[in-house]
Amino acid sequence: MSPGNVAVFHGGKMKLIDRRLKLTELLLRCSATALALLALILIVTNTQVKQIFTIEKRAKYTDMKALVFLVVANGIAAAYSLLQSVRCVVGSMKGSVLLDKSLAWAIFLGDQAMAYISVAAIAASAESGLIGIRGEEKLQWMKLCNMFGKFCNRSAGGTATALLASVALVFVSCISAFSLFRLYGGGATQRHPNLSVTK
Amino acid sequence: MSPGNVAVFHGGKMKLIDRRLKLTELLLRCSATALALLALILIVTNTQVKQIFTIEKRAKYTDMKALVFLVVANGIAAAYSLLQSVRCVVGSMKGSVLLDKSLAWAIFLGDQAMAYISVAAIAASAESGLIGIRGEEKLQWMKLCNMFGKFCNRSAGGTATALLASVALVFVSCISAFSLFRLYGGGATQRHPNLSVTK
Repeated sequence: MSPGNVAVFHGGKMKLIDRRLKLTELLLRCSATALALLALILIVTNTQVKQIFTIEKRAKYTDMKALVFLVVANGIAAAYSLLQSVRCVVGSMKGSVLLDKSLAWAIFLGDQAMAYISVAAIAASAESGLIGIRGEEKLQWMKLCNMFGKFCNRSAGGTATALLASVALVFVSCISAFSLFRLYGGGATQRHPNLSVTK
Repeated sequence: MSPGNVAVFHGGKMKLIDRRLKLTELLLRCSATALALLALILIVTNTQVKQIFTIEKRAKYTDMKALVFLVVANGIAAAYSLLQSVRCVVGSMKGSVLLDKSLAWAIFLGDQAMAYISVAAIAASAESGLIGIRGEEKLQWMKLCNMFGKFCNRSAGGTATALLASVALVFVSCISAFSLFRLYGGGATQRHPNLSVTK
């Protein structure tokens, strides 16, 4: 091999790290898909009817805009994570390491967007939920969970499940950042047993 | 230099990228400090008094828990970004490139936490703000911004400023991810004009 066109190949340790990282990424993406879908189902199917004198009151997720945002965000997260899981499986079957910078950038940006959208949706939903549980006395926003306890509990369960999905998405976004930025490692100090400097 | 202990030094292009990146990081961290502080001041000093018949009603940020969370988050973000800015300036004066993995990990984790906390605080505040502007009719949470217009506008301004700070924090977290994970670049394919493989 001539100077000026030298490829530094994988060491055994890096290969092992690569394999473990790929497996972790796949597991996290599958978990995110399942958890986001579960959260979506928990929230969408949640409803409670309450008879107050002669008036029938029905609580459902569309009454609270934050829950609608959470459902939409989880729908997108589930679909995105499923697609990425398939990509991971196909990549593993081919046995290739991600070296295409454009693809690595696309995955990195997609993962970052998904993680932040997911965190924002949970924060908004948690805020609405807290008002529902405690009320905002000074603003005369009444607490509602004393009336619709079952509905509130299931919404809290859905939000907690979405939070777990979100944690998986955050970790996955760190892995895709690693997969992208390691490709720019030429600028850092590195050591390799099979290399020498030619002067 | 003997094989087995070879340092790959910076190319001219990487040096230029490093310089630009350092400058961008410093500018982003300084912007985040200033914007987070401005958002904090805008929200904390925001108050409006309204006379309703004989009752005097005063709106302030402590009435809305989401705004308290936003103030706390922005206080932490401002202090953190200031400290990091100082570190950037000291690092630039020394002219060194970040090669210490432990420090790079600490900065990366701190930046990630700050970015997500900041996004969560804005989402919670925006959700409360939307209820204040539109109300949640089905839940009988009244809109308040028709009564406390000036207070609402300034809160919206504070949240928007916090959003800008948050955007800076998100970009900064990408830069620190780059600075960390490039240190693990040994596993990727790399080319360097001054290297040859010894067999």
